[in-house]
Amino acid sequence: MNEAPAPFAENDAPAPFAEQDYAARMTRTARAAAEAELAGLLVTPGPDMVWLCGYRPPAPAERPTLLVLTPGSEPRLLVPALERPDAEAAPGAGALRVSEWHDGQDPYAAASGLLLPSGRYGVSDTTWALHLLGLQEALPLTTYRALTTVLPMLRAVKDEPEAARLTAAAAAADAAYEEILAVRFAGRRESDVAADLARLLREHGHSQVDFAVVGAGPNGADPHHEAGDRVIEQGDTVVLDFGGLKDGYGSDTTRTVHVGEPTDEERTVHDLVRTAQQAAFEAVAPGVPCQEIDRRARRVVEDAGYGDHFAHRTGHGIGVTTHEPPYLAEGEETPLAPGMCFSIEPGVYLPGRFGVRIEDIVLCTPDGGRRLNTTDHGMAIVE
Amino acid sequence: MNEAPAPFAENDAPAPFAEQDYAARMTRTARAAAEAELAGLLVTPGPDMVWLCGYRPPAPAERPTLLVLTPGSEPRLLVPALERPDAEAAPGAGALRVSEWHDGQDPYAAASGLLLPSGRYGVSDTTWALHLLGLQEALPLTTYRALTTVLPMLRAVKDEPEAARLTAAAAAADAAYEEILAVRFAGRRESDVAADLARLLREHGHSQVDFAVVGAGPNGADPHHEAGDRVIEQGDTVVLDFGGLKDGYGSDTTRTVHVGEPTDEERTVHDLVRTAQQAAFEAVAPGVPCQEIDRRARRVVEDAGYGDHFAHRTGHGIGVTTHEPPYLAEGEETPLAPGMCFSIEPGVYLPGRFGVRIEDIVLCTPDGGRRLNTTDHGMAIVE
Repeated sequence: MNEAPAPFAENDAPAPFAEQDYAARMTRTARAAAEAELAGLLVTPGPDMVWLCGYRPPAPAERPTLLVLTPGSEPRLLVPALERPDAEAAPGAGALRVSEWHDGQDPYAAASGLLLPSGRYGVSDTTWALHLLGLQEALPLTTYRALTTVLPMLRAVKDEPEAARLTAAAAAADAAYEEILAVRFAGRRESDVAADLARLLREHGHSQVDFAVVGAGPNGADPHHEAGDRVIEQGDTVVLDFGGLKDGYGSDTTRTVHVGEPTDEERTVHDLVRTAQQAAFEAVAPGVPCQEIDRRARRVVEDAGYGDHFAHRTGHGIGVTTHEPPYLAEGEETPLAPGMCFSIEPGVYLPGRFGVRIEDIVLCTPDGGRRLNTTDHGMAIVE
Repeated sequence: MNEAPAPFAENDAPAPFAEQDYAARMTRTARAAAEAELAGLLVTPGPDMVWLCGYRPPAPAERPTLLVLTPGSEPRLLVPALERPDAEAAPGAGALRVSEWHDGQDPYAAASGLLLPSGRYGVSDTTWALHLLGLQEALPLTTYRALTTVLPMLRAVKDEPEAARLTAAAAAADAAYEEILAVRFAGRRESDVAADLARLLREHGHSQVDFAVVGAGPNGADPHHEAGDRVIEQGDTVVLDFGGLKDGYGSDTTRTVHVGEPTDEERTVHDLVRTAQQAAFEAVAPGVPCQEIDRRARRVVEDAGYGDHFAHRTGHGIGVTTHEPPYLAEGEETPLAPGMCFSIEPGVYLPGRFGVRIEDIVLCTPDGGRRLNTTDHGMAIVE
């Protein structure tokens, strides 16, 4: 039996979140701010704002737009005057009070009226320096901490509707993977296969493709190679790492395939990465520190003598973005909790030769990890 | 005779900028920093970094990447270790020294080794608060100013190869406009026409579409409406505002069309906006303050009694982005200089009824303004 929440039919959009969903998120977040001894939170456009109130401003970000959450007070959204209609049309707008500033006015003076002059605020990681410096100048005694520093796990625990969206996004990415195995690899450029992957993600309901990495032969040994002009050859190991957003939630999966029969060494390295991924997956359970998942994968790779060739952390969270906390990395002691959703993606990279990475999105449940990506981990042979 | 530099053949990519182009930009920028009494500049990923050294990191921005320009010293680029190969492949990499930090290390400690402990630095407007706060904590005596505050006109004056790219991008947008006039408007949704515009921009060589606004009837009265489900009707005034990037440089043009014959009032308002746009254009000359261009357009609209219905600034610069300094707005006293390139886009918005906006990209030359968009300003009648 499949324990996972029933995914949406592939091209069936889920019901949109409602005003009370946003109101609940804002209230919960303001409470978390108070518990973190903050006077409040300053949230600028980006994933935090979308998640909190559903608003995504239409216009260039040099005009500040600020969501101010103050424990015990009504949430406030300060917007450029000409974007007020857009702000008021946001699905969470009914749960907050919109105010505006006009071109020619000092927006930081307007914002400072919404803040305590000497408060300690959390601020979105992605807030522009332009705006943070403007606020620091307008209110010299206010202090700021990056939101992921003070409330790193704000969006980390997904509720059921969120987990269902992530499950559906992963299923769509898996469908794209199954279909990419049938395309021609040998003799085509990496960028051609990447375009196929992007097209398949869209065909399976993605509104946005964040990355479609195709790393053939030595390019696979650069963990952040994207896809280039290299013509894929018979005998190449090819890393495929792709994902984006479907109905507002992310997908991200990696499989490593081979054009024709692999060598013994290629098989050995692939088996090693597969074993490491499995070991990390099996360690997932509520209460286990994030870094422990990283250590499990790393130990397998180190014990096989490849420790120097696994140069990145084991995973990252996923939600309304494709990379977010929690990070599965040494030093991250946060315990896993049911509802956290993250990648597990160990890799081995042999410079100038080839690389192997295997990545699934995993949901932490009360009973352990549940893979949202379920395609085969074996090294598929392509043509 | 056409005075404009010969645009590139439409689908002919221009020669890429070379290492010495980037070296010259970095040297010039470091000198400007010294003149602005800065210890140096800190540039994070985005348009400034692309313009200065051609580097666009592949990976999520929670891992800091910093370009440090110090007058009289070699430029330094600090990158996450696993992105070093990407950084070294950037076209301007030969003109700087790359150093790296590893996952698990403190990147701000690594960065602080490249800065003066109590220096005053300019920092990219778009630098994430996460990174600025990290730097402020690592070096409590360093101070920062937003780059557009201290060096607002850094990228504002375009050289000839840049002006040629902007000319070509405008020509491509104009070609898209000519073709959109032939599509069906009445009975289709705004979003359908927007999709046509986006497709046409791509067909004419755009690699990226930043916006394709279609505001029909009352939606045209919201200056930042994008395009929605509204079905365009006979009798609608329709604002079309579209642009993106072609060969790394921006386009942005607006025309207001009408489905069938306009009313006298619609004609009057359209003529008014056209007159305002022309008046602003004719004022363009080296030495004229930016705000004067805004005032010229605004005066025409105000004199006709519509001053309350022109709620935004008259224009913005364009270059490697589609919105950047200089801003043509009250309070912006910077004098225009040859090579500056910006939009002139007055509008009149009658809430609940219709809006009109006309926008051209204009290059300031020694002899006055030169329109890069050259399609007819008359209110085209569409079907």
